[in-house]
This record gives sequence, C-alpha cells and structure tokens, in this order.
Amino acid sequence: MSDNSFGRLLRVTTFGESHGPAIGCVVDGCPPGIALAPEDFRRDLDRRATGKTRHTSARREADDIEILSGVYEGVTTGTPIGLLIRNTDARSQDYSRIAEQFRPGHADYTYWQKYGIRDPRGGGRSSARETTMRVAAGVIAKKWLAERHGVRIQGWLSQLGTVTPAATDLGVVEGNPFFWPDAAQVPELEAYMDALRKSGDSVGARVDVVAEGVPPGWGAPIYGKLDAELAAALMSINAVKGVEIGDGFASVAQTGSEHRDVASPAGFESNHAGGVLGGISSGQDLRCSVAFKPTSSLRLPTDGVDIHGNVVEIVTTGRHDPCVGIRAIPICEAMVALVLMDQAMRHRAQCGDVGDVAPRIPAKKR
Amino acid sequence: MSDNSFGRLLRVTTFGESHGPAIGCVVDGCPPGIALAPEDFRRDLDRRATGKTRHTSARREADDIEILSGVYEGVTTGTPIGLLIRNTDARSQDYSRIAEQFRPGHADYTYWQKYGIRDPRGGGRSSARETTMRVAAGVIAKKWLAERHGVRIQGWLSQLGTVTPAATDLGVVEGNPFFWPDAAQVPELEAYMDALRKSGDSVGARVDVVAEGVPPGWGAPIYGKLDAELAAALMSINAVKGVEIGDGFASVAQTGSEHRDVASPAGFESNHAGGVLGGISSGQDLRCSVAFKPTSSLRLPTDGVDIHGNVVEIVTTGRHDPCVGIRAIPICEAMVALVLMDQAMRHRAQCGDVGDVAPRIPAKKR
Amino acid sequence: MSDNSFGRLLRVTTFGESHGPAIGCVVDGCPPGIALAPEDFRRDLDRRATGKTRHTSARREADDIEILSGVYEGVTTGTPIGLLIRNTDARSQDYSRIAEQFRPGHADYTYWQKYGIRDPRGGGRSSARETTMRVAAGVIAKKWLAERHGVRIQGWLSQLGTVTPAATDLGVVEGNPFFWPDAAQVPELEAYMDALRKSGDSVGARVDVVAEGVPPGWGAPIYGKLDAELAAALMSINAVKGVEIGDGFASVAQTGSEHRDVASPAGFESNHAGGVLGGISSGQDLRCSVAFKPTSSLRLPTDGVDIHGNVVEIVTTGRHDPCVGIRAIPICEAMVALVLMDQAMRHRAQCGDVGDVAPRIPAKKR
Amino acid sequence: MSDNSFGRLLRVTTFGESHGPAIGCVVDGCPPGIALAPEDFRRDLDRRATGKTRHTSARREADDIEILSGVYEGVTTGTPIGLLIRNTDARSQDYSRIAEQFRPGHADYTYWQKYGIRDPRGGGRSSARETTMRVAAGVIAKKWLAERHGVRIQGWLSQLGTVTPAATDLGVVEGNPFFWPDAAQVPELEAYMDALRKSGDSVGARVDVVAEGVPPGWGAPIYGKLDAELAAALMSINAVKGVEIGDGFASVAQTGSEHRDVASPAGFESNHAGGVLGGISSGQDLRCSVAFKPTSSLRLPTDGVDIHGNVVEIVTTGRHDPCVGIRAIPICEAMVALVLMDQAMRHRAQCGDVGDVAPRIPAKKR
Repeated sequence: MSDNSFGRLLRVTTFGESHGPAIGCVVDGCPPGIALAPEDFRRDLDRRATGKTRHTSARREADDIEILSGVYEGVTTGTPIGLLIRNTDARSQDYSRIAEQFRPGHADYTYWQKYGIRDPRGGGRSSARETTMRVAAGVIAKKWLAERHGVRIQGWLSQLGTVTPAATDLGVVEGNPFFWPDAAQVPELEAYMDALRKSGDSVGARVDVVAEGVPPGWGAPIYGKLDAELAAALMSINAVKGVEIGDGFASVAQTGSEHRDVASPAGFESNHAGGVLGGISSGQDLRCSVAFKPTSSLRLPTDGVDIHGNVVEIVTTGRHDPCVGIRAIPICEAMVALVLMDQAMRHRAQCGDVGDVAPRIPAKKR
Repeated sequence: MSDNSFGRLLRVTTFGESHGPAIGCVVDGCPPGIALAPEDFRRDLDRRATGKTRHTSARREADDIEILSGVYEGVTTGTPIGLLIRNTDARSQDYSRIAEQFRPGHADYTYWQKYGIRDPRGGGRSSARETTMRVAAGVIAKKWLAERHGVRIQGWLSQLGTVTPAATDLGVVEGNPFFWPDAAQVPELEAYMDALRKSGDSVGARVDVVAEGVPPGWGAPIYGKLDAELAAALMSINAVKGVEIGDGFASVAQTGSEHRDVASPAGFESNHAGGVLGGISSGQDLRCSVAFKPTSSLRLPTDGVDIHGNVVEIVTTGRHDPCVGIRAIPICEAMVALVLMDQAMRHRAQCGDVGDVAPRIPAKKR
Repeated sequence: MSDNSFGRLLRVTTFGESHGPAIGCVVDGCPPGIALAPEDFRRDLDRRATGKTRHTSARREADDIEILSGVYEGVTTGTPIGLLIRNTDARSQDYSRIAEQFRPGHADYTYWQKYGIRDPRGGGRSSARETTMRVAAGVIAKKWLAERHGVRIQGWLSQLGTVTPAATDLGVVEGNPFFWPDAAQVPELEAYMDALRKSGDSVGARVDVVAEGVPPGWGAPIYGKLDAELAAALMSINAVKGVEIGDGFASVAQTGSEHRDVASPAGFESNHAGGVLGGISSGQDLRCSVAFKPTSSLRLPTDGVDIHGNVVEIVTTGRHDPCVGIRAIPICEAMVALVLMDQAMRHRAQCGDVGDVAPRIPAKKR
Repeated sequence: MSDNSFGRLLRVTTFGESHGPAIGCVVDGCPPGIALAPEDFRRDLDRRATGKTRHTSARREADDIEILSGVYEGVTTGTPIGLLIRNTDARSQDYSRIAEQFRPGHADYTYWQKYGIRDPRGGGRSSARETTMRVAAGVIAKKWLAERHGVRIQGWLSQLGTVTPAATDLGVVEGNPFFWPDAAQVPELEAYMDALRKSGDSVGARVDVVAEGVPPGWGAPIYGKLDAELAAALMSINAVKGVEIGDGFASVAQTGSEHRDVASPAGFESNHAGGVLGGISSGQDLRCSVAFKPTSSLRLPTDGVDIHGNVVEIVTTGRHDPCVGIRAIPICEAMVALVLMDQAMRHRAQCGDVGDVAPRIPAKKR
C-alpha cells in the first residue's frame, strides 16, 4: 500500500530526493542464492547516467551503489536488499530562484497543492533522479530472469521527436548514444539534437521494449493482468504519457481477421497481441511501446505563476536533458523486468503444481 | 494482493464466469451515508448491456442486480457492499465444441498453459461478462464523486475502425447507439457496422474519457501516480491494447515549448498534459484515451490448434460483438471513477490537514 | 488493503450482515486442480452451527452453501471462488427495540461512533454470523494442506469458564458437544452450562489448536512472521482477547535453559516454542491458544446509554450462546489453516528453488 | 505485500542485518508538515539501547540516525522518509564459531531450512537489532498522535521472571533501569538480575502498554480490527510469545455480567475490554500486555545440532541481554503507535465526513 513501492512479491521501495543527501531503495522478497555484487549494477546505471555525452544533462553523478543488506558473502540471503547512492553533484543554488515558482509542465504546482510544501531542489522527489533506483532494482530482476528463465529484455529508441528509424537493427542499439536501431541515421540525430539544444527547446521520444523467452502462463487475470501491470509500471516513469502493448493504438483500425494471431503446431504466424492474451503471457515476444513527452525544463523563458498567484517570468537554468527519452531505455527495461519477475513468482506460488499441460506453440520470430 | 481485486482504500473484488450461475462483486471501504438502491445501477448497466441494438451481441441479460450487504435502510453503512447478478441467458452448448480448441486471439491457450484447466463456457472468467461488475462498482464511485466533489465523468467513441468523428459534440453521445460525438455520421456508422456484421469480421475502437471537476492534489508519487493507476485500470479491461493520458503518443513529436501548459492567474492556456503532472491532478480536465482491439470471435473460419497439438478448423458461432469498444464506454468511465475515488480517499488520509495552500489556477475550458 | 479481506496470496474477502439477505465470501488465489463440492463444507459448517444442542444459540440456519464461481466440473480453476449462504432464520424484530441502544460489551457504540450508522439487526456486520464464511474458506485451505502437505489441524476447548480438562485425549473431542478432551467431565460441563443458561449469564473459554505436519521453513520475517499472522488471524475472531504461541505467557516465568528447545539428530526434546522460531516454522507441532471473552448478550438486565445520551435499561432477548467459545473451534482451525496455506504459497514463490538444505530434526511427539 | 513492511497507509519498511554495514527504514505515507529532526529520535533510541546498564548487553551502539529524505528545512514533505543508522560495534568474530551451528531456541535452524543460507553474524536479520528502526519509525507516529490527537502511549515492565510489581506507579517507570512501576522493588530486581547474569541464564518478562486519549472510532472490522493489528504488531517483535488486549486470558474465567463494561452518561464503570469493542476503539484506555520469552543466548552450554546433522556442544559467548523484555518497552510502544497512526489515517479516509454522531461516553479513569 506504499505509493513509493512497486511489486507484490518482489517489492521495491524507493526513497530520496534529487538533491538530498542520498537516494536508495529496498528490494524485498528476492529469492536467496543469487550472486550479487556492486559491479553488477554498473552497466545499466551507466546507460542511464547523465553527463556521458553532450546530448544529456551535464550533471555528473558517479552513482556508486552500496549494498547495505540482504547479501552475505556475495549471495542474496532472502532478506531485504538495501541499496544506497549518495548524491554528489547537487547544485541547489541552481534552484533557489524557482523555489516559489510553478514551472509550466512540472510537478511544482501539483505537489504544492497536494502537500502544501515541496523540496524545490532539483525537483525534489519528482525528479527523474529517482529512476536510478528503479534501474538498480531492475538489474536484480534482469539477472534472475536471465539465469532462471532465459528471459532477455532489450529496449531502444523508436522515435526521436519527428525522426523515426529507417531500419531496426537491435545489434547497433548499444553502439550509439541514442540507443538507435539504425546506425546510418546517427549523424542526422547528432545534428538534430545539437540544433535542438542550441534552440533551448526539447522534444519527446518513443521507446520500444521487447522481452524474449517469457514462457506462457505468466500474468494473472483480472486486475493483476501482465499488460495492466506493465502499463502501470511504464506510466509511472517520469514524463510518460502513453503505453501500448503489441500493436497498441494501431489495433483500432484493424479487423479481427487481421489482428488475431493465428497459430499452427509450427508456431504463431504473427504477433499483433504483443505476447499477452487475457492478461497472461503467450510465449511470444512481449512487446511494449512508451511515449515520453518533451521535458518542460527549457531555457526558453515563459510567463508563469508563483505561489502567491503573481505572474512571473520563468527561465529554467538548471542542467537538463533536451530529450529525456534517450536515457529512459534502461528505466523501461527495468520496469518490464520487475513486472515479469514479480509475475513469475506469483505464477509459481499459485500454479507451481501445474505441469506441462499442452504442447507449446513456438513464438513468431522477428 | 488479490488479482481479482482493484483499488486500495475503495477495494473492488469481482468473481464469476460468463456462463456460471452468477457474477458478483464486493465493494469494500465505501464511506457510510451514501444513498444507494438497485435502480442506481440501471442506467450504466443498460449502457453496457448487449442485445439492445443489432450492433452488439444478441445475448440478452436482464442484469438485475441484488444488493446483498452493506446497505441498511437505503444508505451505505461502511461495511462491504455485496452485489450479485444471476446469469440467465447462458447457452453453454454454443461453446461445447470449442472446449478443446485454442481460438486465435483469445485467452484459451494462455489460461490453459497457466492453470492446466479452463471453463470454456463463454470464455469463462476471461469473458467481458466480468466487466458488468466493474460498471456496477463504478456507479457507486461516480455517485460519490459527483455528490461530494462535483466530479463529472463522460466517455465517448473517438474512433470506430477507420472512421473518426468529424465533430465532437458531447451532447449527442448518449443519443446514438455508438456513443458517437457527431450525430451526422450515425447513418454512415450504421452502414459500416451492418457491412461488417455481414462480413463476419470485427473492428477495433478508440474510447476517450474526460473527468471534469477533479480538484488539484489527487494522486500519489511515485508508483501510486494517478496516471499510472489509470493506465492499469484501463489496460485491465478486456481487449485494451493501449492507454494515453493527455496528448499521449502525439507528445513524442512535440517540442517542450509546445507541450508545456503555460498558466497565468487567469487559467491554464492549454491542456496537453491531460490534467496530470508528476502523477498528481492539476485541476484541469483529466483526459484519457483507450485503444480496443477488434474482437477475435469471428464467424470467419481459420486454422487453429487444439489442446492435443492438432490442427483444427475454428469457427466461432457464439453471439459476439462486431466491435467490443462500443459497449466499453461505461466500463472505461467506471474504471476512471474507481481510480479517482480511491485516490481522493488516500489524499484525504495523508493530506487532509493541508488547507488551501495557494491560489488555484482555473482549468482550460474546452 | 481491504479490511474485510484476509491473506496475501490466498485472499479471502467476506461480506454480509447477520440478518441481511445473505453472507458470502470470495476466495481468490486458490491453486487450480483441487476437487471441491458443496458437501466438502458440510462437516465444519455443522461443527460451527447453532441450534444443534441446548448449549448454543437456538438460531437454526441450514447454512446451505452455493458455489457461484471458480469451480468447473467439480475442480477449482484458479479463478476466484464465490461462496454464498442465504440467511433464513433472521428474526429482525428481536432487535428493533435495541436499535438505538448501546449494549454494554458490544460493538454498538463503537460502530456508531465510527460510521454514524449501524445495522442493528443481529449485530449486523459485527455478529459472529460472519465467521461462517471463515469456516467455509478454511475448508478449502484444510483440504489443500492435507492433500498436498499432509498437514492436520485440530482444535479443542481447553478451558470453559473456571473448568479445565483433567486429561487431554484428542480422540474424544469430536464426540461431545463441548469439543472437550476429557469425556469423563462431560456430565459436569452439561450441569455447569445448564446452570449458567438458567442464570442468564455467560462465561469465557479457552481454545487450543495444533497443526501437525507443518514442514520447516513456512513463515516470513519480519512483519510477515507466521506467529504474527496467526495472532492477527485469531485476534480478528469475535470475542477473542488473547493469543498465545507455544508456552505463551507461561514463558515469562521460565528461564532460558528451561525454555529453549534443545535438539539432537534424534529430534527436539521439547516444544516450548510451539513450532515457530524467528517467525518461521520449525517442523514441530504448531501450537496456539486463544482466549474468548464471555458473550455480552445476557438476559440479565443492566443500565446502559442510548444514542441520545439517555440512560436506558438494557435486556438482550435475542438467541445467544452462553459460551461463544464452544462453537469457535472450527473457526480457530479455519484461521490457522488460512494462514498456513498462504504462508506455504509465499514460501514456494520466494524459496521454491531451495532444496533440502540440511538434515531435518524430527518433531517432539506429544 | 512486503514481509519486511508494516502498516497500510503509514508504511514502514526496514532493512539491515545485525552486523552488516547499516540498518535502516523507509517511512512512507507520513503526512506533510510535521517538524522532524534527528534529536527527536534520541530519547526512545536511548531507552532501547544496550550498554547503558549492566543489566543489558554490553554492545555499545551510538545509534546516530541520519535522515536521508522526506524532510525539507526541518519539516516532513509527504515523501518517503529514509532513515539510516550505521553499525559501529559489530564483532563478527564472536559469531564465526557458530556459523554452522543451530543454536537451540534461535532462528538459525528455521532460516537455514527456509533460505538454504543465513548471515550468522549476530543473528543477521533475526537479531533484535532490527527493532531499532521500529523505535525510530514509532517516534514519528508518537509525535503525530500526540500533536494531532493528544494520544499518549506508555509502557512498563509488569513482570520480570517470577517477580511482579507490588504497586503500579507509572510516574517512577522512567526513573529506573527496569521500567518498573514500583520504585521500592528496584534493589530486589538488581539483585535478581545480578544473580541471573552470574548464573549465565536468562528469564522472560511481561510488558504492559497503555494508550490514553484514543478517540472512539479507530479500527476497522473485520480483518483490519484494531486489536487484530495490535496482536500482529506486538507478536512480530522478537521473542514475543503472547498478546492480550484488556483482561486477555483472565476473561476466560469471567462471567458476562462481570466482563461487560457497563456505561452511563457519566462514563464507563470498568475497562475489561481494554478500549476495543468489535475491533474499534471505544475511547477508553487502550490496554495491551505482551509476553517475552527468555532469550536463548546463554553462557550455559548445551548439546545441539549443526548443519551437517552432527551433535555439537553449543555455548553462546556473544554479548546478550539476560532479559530482553527490559529493553522492549520502547519497541512495544512504537508498534502500538504505528498501528494507531495507521488506523487513524484509514479512519479519516473512509469516515472523515462522519461528524460527532452521538454523545461520547467518558473513559474510565485508572
């Protein structure tokens, strides 16, 4: 029932503000016997980190993670795993000026209306800084899913502002700063982002995530549906405005004869459903798409309102991402991983005695 | 932790199969003192009901609801409200033939893989019959939201297959069988649906829902965000493949200067965010869009697989909707209402002592 | 998060008032493949039922249970099991007189203060009538525990007012109307209860419950401890004022060298702990004791207060048990069974990969 | 659903092992606007701390608490409050010898059977070290309850081994190292404990807790009863074997005419119920009693079993309390406070619109 917790059996609780002393999380319910070390978090924390290229915020955080509990002699013990990262590059003075301002498109006004108080330093709790701990927790889930079930999760940028990929080669995604599936377009994107940054404006992005190797049977009707929990998990990420499973909104214009994924013993012939039927995994690739709005932190000035109801000119001078979606790939992957591990554990709890009950239908290969 | 329950403080638990003896739900946590009678459920149950026009399934259910508990002398007592509807027009023989078949696009295969058993009568638990109880629970939430907070929730069909409204006049929505906001197009839709029904095929639909009068401050970061819970609530509805808040996927191609909703003491100048910022309501209209896939229950035959792994020809002869989205409007409204009431109660629990803390910014009028 | 729900993975939600149209429950999360029929509920419902002997309330309820969902062709499907019992012998006129009175020792005053309204018919929701559904849900848990794990749960009366058993022979418990472990004392108890009933007064009772065959490893530190959940489960039963695990309050005067249960490879030498260490089962018999207060529904008149703050004379003329503890044995057994099944499922979810990790220490035999 | 979390709306999640780098907790759902500083935790942490007198363990922990989040400029913001305490006086070598031994009366064997691994350093997660964070979280709840509702919570030792208080003067409880309500007996207790410590043995204790000023209406039938949640909260404390509300087990031998607390407009005439009726507070003093077993960590050697099934001699040489109950008073108070604050918030959420509905009956004064 904690609004800052996620998951049912694998329970992640995060805490911390953008410019407070530290951010952290507690991962409870993790099975014992999983090898876990601080180095395991490095790759995904770096993929999410700012300050690596000129296309992300200049803020530099080492993001050195400390394992405070739940691991003994390098192995999880089944007790809660406490993770902590100290904030080091916090420049609160950047924000003092806007402490009493409601920045358009930000949570300033809504936090104020809800709580009557807010920590203005770097957006406080509403900052994407919190997502660092989602990525950390996701690392544990990805590790368990890969080792126990052979599940592999990969995300990429499928749209950047008005630009869409000419090709989708997942092999090149990790080789460029945009997690872009078409290497040939990278120079174009560099130019696009440079121009955008100079203009002081920002754009949105679309992220696709696929999970391969999910067995059939994970998920739980009616309100605990796999796709319903994925929708909540992904929509809970800062700046997300839409979530699709499989063909998503394109399904609206499709006919049933087009959309339904016909199968034969040789396998499914299509995957419009995105790997979920009736809220339960089908064994096909799990496909999600996420829409990120353009960040509202712009150098372009605008009129706004302050806490006293006065008109004020608002200019955001902090260090921000011209496109938050770029760094969101590991965050989306983490949320998908957390949902899948939780559902896998719940499935074992209720249906662990159900054996192989029917021939499995092979997944449609991309 | 029940997969068949929804909500935290206002907790709805549903049960029942499509062709079992009855469907029902328990609404727990409802405040005392709300006038409630069986007639209150009539309008929305009728809006969701089949068999009213030739454009929906021919199944006829009276959907007479019985209040089993939680109401004394016409008023809620604060104890759980038990609601029951007997299934009357169940024709199980329609389904006997497909008991061992996995219908493409249905939950047959996934339920089988998960549970090793399934109730094939009318799709059993995976049937949209379950949504009747969502609508019933939603009636209570709508009543409370309207009476205590002046919140008004309305949904409509914003796309039917390839057809989109030429105009959006919410005043005409309840006046046609398609919940369509442009009366002039109704004849076109009639023809479209007649042709579709004759063809034995189906199409998808897009539903928009707006909640007016939601005060600022409802919602809860980080994982209990208002938009995250709306996404889960709407994605949990049968056949839903996508959810958007505000501009949704259109935000991807927008710039920050376009998207951010600038405000002055006179009011917000736009509502791209759809009434939610940082997971908390802003006081603007709450705007959601939902994508419904075309139903997979078609008269058009197709090859499929049975539980023994054999190829079989599959023809669905039951009574089905050529477009499930049409009847989904009250279901979507109900889920939005349940999320809002739950969040309103949680807000009062934590922040009930926070008074009016800053001048409220008026909502952008449509 | 529902106050009327119990359990995490095996989730029981009850509804219904004492003299409303019906009482019912939803059992969600039950594994598929369990044979279940209405007859399975008969024995325990009869053990809990009133009107069987002159020593319990004269109210006669057939308690015919209807399975509304979750069972197909006599087997559970994994979907929620809806259970319903119609109230037949409701005499609301018995209670009309006390609708505005606060009966001492009853929940009348507290419900009124909380909700501002209450259903006075038979105590409404606060009546022990609700426990019928606990017993029904417990039947499912007992069945699963016995079939899958060989766990056997038995309760008995270990004190009736001031009378304690001279011997403890569990073989005779089901053979007398007091669930008393010493057959020789039954005549004495008959006389004791007859005198009590004539006097118009009531007495308390102590119930002991033992679960045999619980494997080591069930339970979950820190707040999900097996004993903590048993305490909540048993204290939630009407009229319960105390719960003990193992030696309970007698442990206070013991020394550590007396209390700690020394073990050798041949087995534990004692069971002061009652089968739980650190919140996790040890494989020894799980032992609980429960204190029931005397019912406050007496024919003996007393002064009281009404809702207007006036002094009134209060006489309870309804049909009541002179000792509620007698009928509570199956209720206590049910709550223990529900806690154990839930913990067993949670254990499998988190630790299902942990094999036999050390030689098991045999339990101390009684 | 986290086993290491407690509470529904005020959600406390703890983590950390006895001799790991740190222990901590996250308090989520706390209302905004509460003044909170590290000094606020000092008094109760000191009351729980070891090494203050010769009658508790010699382990010395500064227990300097760091507030990592949720507080801005000295005031809670409504976001999760992260609290951290570094372990400083951890002597793991004390425990290396028993890493493969199952100490009688400890959780060694049950953790091993559950998880297949355990952190043996100081008992790891099963150590009472964890209760430090319960006390810390309880400080916040006590502060809120006192400031917003005038609730005052006090605990004391009501039995130490075989010794019971000759008088109960709560004014002297904080003035002696035993939290004993009869100053005249302190020398006797000193001698009793000195002899016990020399003998290498330990004893149990009984703790009483009273909460004054709880208004009527807090609590929630049926499974969320105030007394049921108190029972779980108190039973979850290390070494607790029994919980009573009001007269507890003494109620068994009482008659209904004795037990029921008769009231007049002038007030209740007794408080056998302990301030709870039907799971809801009555406005009388909330009275709980808790039984603590004698610690099993003794210098007295005993035979035991190791993880290989061999017989081994077990001597515990670490630093332990001869009576853990003494330091448990602030822990019990904290758990009562956490339950009350959570119930108060839930009551406001559901029944915040219910005004003063009937004349309140004054509480019985002690």
